[in-house]
Amino acid sequence: MTTTVTPTTGTSTTQIDLDDLEALARGAAVLGTGGGGDPYIGRLLAAQAIREHGPVALVRPADLPDDACVLPVAMMGAPTVMVEKTPATERVGYAVTALAEHLGVTPTHIACIEAGGLNSTFPLVAAAQLGLPVVDADGMGRAFPELQMVLPTLYGIAATPMSIADEKGNVGLLTTIDNRSSESLARALTITMGCSALISNYAMRGDQARECLVDGTLSLCVRIGRAVAEARAAHGDPVSAATRELGGRALHSGKVTDVARRTTTGFARGTAVISGPAGELTLEFQNEHLVAVRDGTVEVTTPDLIIVLDTDTGEPITTEALRFGHRVTVLAAPCDERWHSEGGIALTGPRYFGYSTDPVRWDERA
Amino acid sequence: MTTTVTPTTGTSTTQIDLDDLEALARGAAVLGTGGGGDPYIGRLLAAQAIREHGPVALVRPADLPDDACVLPVAMMGAPTVMVEKTPATERVGYAVTALAEHLGVTPTHIACIEAGGLNSTFPLVAAAQLGLPVVDADGMGRAFPELQMVLPTLYGIAATPMSIADEKGNVGLLTTIDNRSSESLARALTITMGCSALISNYAMRGDQARECLVDGTLSLCVRIGRAVAEARAAHGDPVSAATRELGGRALHSGKVTDVARRTTTGFARGTAVISGPAGELTLEFQNEHLVAVRDGTVEVTTPDLIIVLDTDTGEPITTEALRFGHRVTVLAAPCDERWHSEGGIALTGPRYFGYSTDPVRWDERA
Repeated sequence: MTTTVTPTTGTSTTQIDLDDLEALARGAAVLGTGGGGDPYIGRLLAAQAIREHGPVALVRPADLPDDACVLPVAMMGAPTVMVEKTPATERVGYAVTALAEHLGVTPTHIACIEAGGLNSTFPLVAAAQLGLPVVDADGMGRAFPELQMVLPTLYGIAATPMSIADEKGNVGLLTTIDNRSSESLARALTITMGCSALISNYAMRGDQARECLVDGTLSLCVRIGRAVAEARAAHGDPVSAATRELGGRALHSGKVTDVARRTTTGFARGTAVISGPAGELTLEFQNEHLVAVRDGTVEVTTPDLIIVLDTDTGEPITTEALRFGHRVTVLAAPCDERWHSEGGIALTGPRYFGYSTDPVRWDERA
Repeated sequence: MTTTVTPTTGTSTTQIDLDDLEALARGAAVLGTGGGGDPYIGRLLAAQAIREHGPVALVRPADLPDDACVLPVAMMGAPTVMVEKTPATERVGYAVTALAEHLGVTPTHIACIEAGGLNSTFPLVAAAQLGLPVVDADGMGRAFPELQMVLPTLYGIAATPMSIADEKGNVGLLTTIDNRSSESLARALTITMGCSALISNYAMRGDQARECLVDGTLSLCVRIGRAVAEARAAHGDPVSAATRELGGRALHSGKVTDVARRTTTGFARGTAVISGPAGELTLEFQNEHLVAVRDGTVEVTTPDLIIVLDTDTGEPITTEALRFGHRVTVLAAPCDERWHSEGGIALTGPRYFGYSTDPVRWDERA
C-alpha cells in the first residue's frame, strides 16, 4: 500500500498494488471467519486485474464526497463451489455496469459488501476494470452468509435494485420489497447459476457509505496480513501477531478430528471438532463459523468473530478448506459494536441461524 | 365478441366483452390440454378487469402495424398452486410496465404466450388495465410447461429481456444467453415467489408477431367454448361439438381410476389412468397432457393435443382438477404444423420430457 501525501492540499492518496495483495487477501480471510471465499483465488484474480489495468486507488470513507455514487460488488454462493468454479473476471465489472445502467447512474466508487478472501479482493477487479477507486471499508467488518446481513440494512438502505450475473452472460436485476426477499430471490438465481454468481447491490451515496459501512476494513486486512508474514519471517508467533491486530484472544488450540460438511440450499453448512489439551471445541458453520461450543457450553457466537488459523503459519483456514488432521488455533474477536444492537442481533444472532442460544460475546469469558 | 364494421374504411373492430369470457375461458382450457391454468379463475379475473375498465379490443395479426410493440404476458408456475393462490390482478399490468420501462418502449398491444384457462384470459386483465388491444393469437396454439416452448423460439426471438413479478411487489428482470436459460432462471424465481409468478417476455414487433404467433387463437377459443355451450343447451353432445371445432377425434372414454400427482420443481407432474369399455388409457402429464398410452402402445404424444373433457358436459378438465371417478373423454387434435418441424420436436417432442418414444401424431392411427 503506497501512500503519497500531496504537499499543497494535504490530501493523502493510498493505492493497492500487487505487493499488497498477499497481505490483503490473508487479512481479509481472517476477518472472513471461515467464509468470504478463498484468499488464494481472490489474490490471483485481483493480481491479474491490477497487472492489466494498474493499481487501485483506496479512498477513506471520510474523504468520500456526499454525492459519491458507491456501488458495492461481491461474489454470492457456496465457497465450496467457488474454489472449483473460478469466476470469469470479465463479468465482474459487468455486474456493476448492469446495475449502474438500470439505476441510470455513473458509479464513482466501488465498495466491498463483506470482508473475506474473495469478497475483499474481488471488488478490486471491478475497480481496476472500471478505473474507479475502492472505499477503504466494508458492509459487515466480517463475513456473513446472507445478503441482508449488512450494516446498511440496519440503516434502512435497500439491497435492491441489485444485479446478479453468471459467468455465461446471464444477468438478472431484482427489485424487492425488503432485504430478506432480496436474499431469497438472489439465492434462487445463484443456485440455478451453478452456486456462484456476481452481484452488485446496496448502491449508496457517499454520506450513506460514511455512516453505515465499517471504516478502514481494507487497511486492517493489510495490517493483519503483514503482521502474520512478519512474525513468520522473524520466526515468531504468527497466530499471536494476528490476535494482537484483531484485538481478540486465543480460544482453543488442537487438531481437527472431525468435519461434517454439506453444500445445501446454496450454502456450505457443517460442523468441525477441534481436539486439544484443553478438550474439544465444536464449531458450527454456515459458510462462516457461527458458534463455538466446549463441553456443552457455548463459548462465543455470531455476531462476534470466530476465526480458525493454522497454528504454525497463522494462515486463515476457510470452512471449505478445513481438513481432518489440521493443527489449528481458534480465535475470538469483537465484531463491529453495531451488530450487538437489537436489530443487529435479530439479523445475525445465533437464533436467526437456528441455534438455541442467546448471543455470547467473545470477551465475556476472557 | 362484438364485431363492428366501419362502412367507410371497411376495417372491422372486434372486442371481447363480459359475455365472451365464459366461452373464451372454456375454449382456452380445451386448447390448454390440461395446463394453462384454471378457466374459472381466469374468467373471474378477466371479468373483474373488464367491469372496471371496459371491453378489450381484439386485433387480428394481419391488422398489426409492422412497428407495433407487442408485449405478451402470462402466469408462470404450478397450476396446482395457482388454484389456491389467486393472483393479485393489480400486478398483471405491472409485469408489462416493468418490462416496457426496462426496454424503453411504449407497448401498443398485449399478446398471449399460450392458450389456457388462465393464460388466455389473464392478458385481458393487463390489456384492460393498460387500455391496450389484445392480439387474436398466441405463441403455441396450445399450452406447454416451459418458457422456451413457444413458436417465437423457432424464429430466433429472444425470451428476454423479461420481467417476473410476484403478488407482494418483488420484481425481477432477466437477460439471458438463450431461451432455455430464461426458463431455468425464471423457474427458480417462480419457485421462490411461491410457485406462481407473473411474467412478460418475448417482446416483439408487429411483423414478427404476424409471422411467428398462431393466428386466431382467441377467436377459436370462443368458438369452441360456444359450441360446447350450445350443444349442451340443445341437449346434444358437447364433446362432439368441441371435437368438430378442433378438427380432432375422440381417443378414449371412461372413468378416471387412478391419478398420481406431485408438485415438484415448480410443475404439477403425474399420471392418470382412464378405464373404459376400450380398455385403459394412461396419460402422462407435466402441467399439460403429454403422452397417451394404451396397453403399452403410445397412441398420441406432444406436440399434438391430448385433451380431457367431462363426458357429459364437455367442460375441459385441467390436470390439477382430474379426480378419481371423473367420467371423461380424451380427444386428440392436431397442433400447429410448425411444431412438427425438427426444431419444434427438439423443443417439445416426447424425448425432451424424458419419455422414450418418438412423437406419435394424432391422426396416424385414426
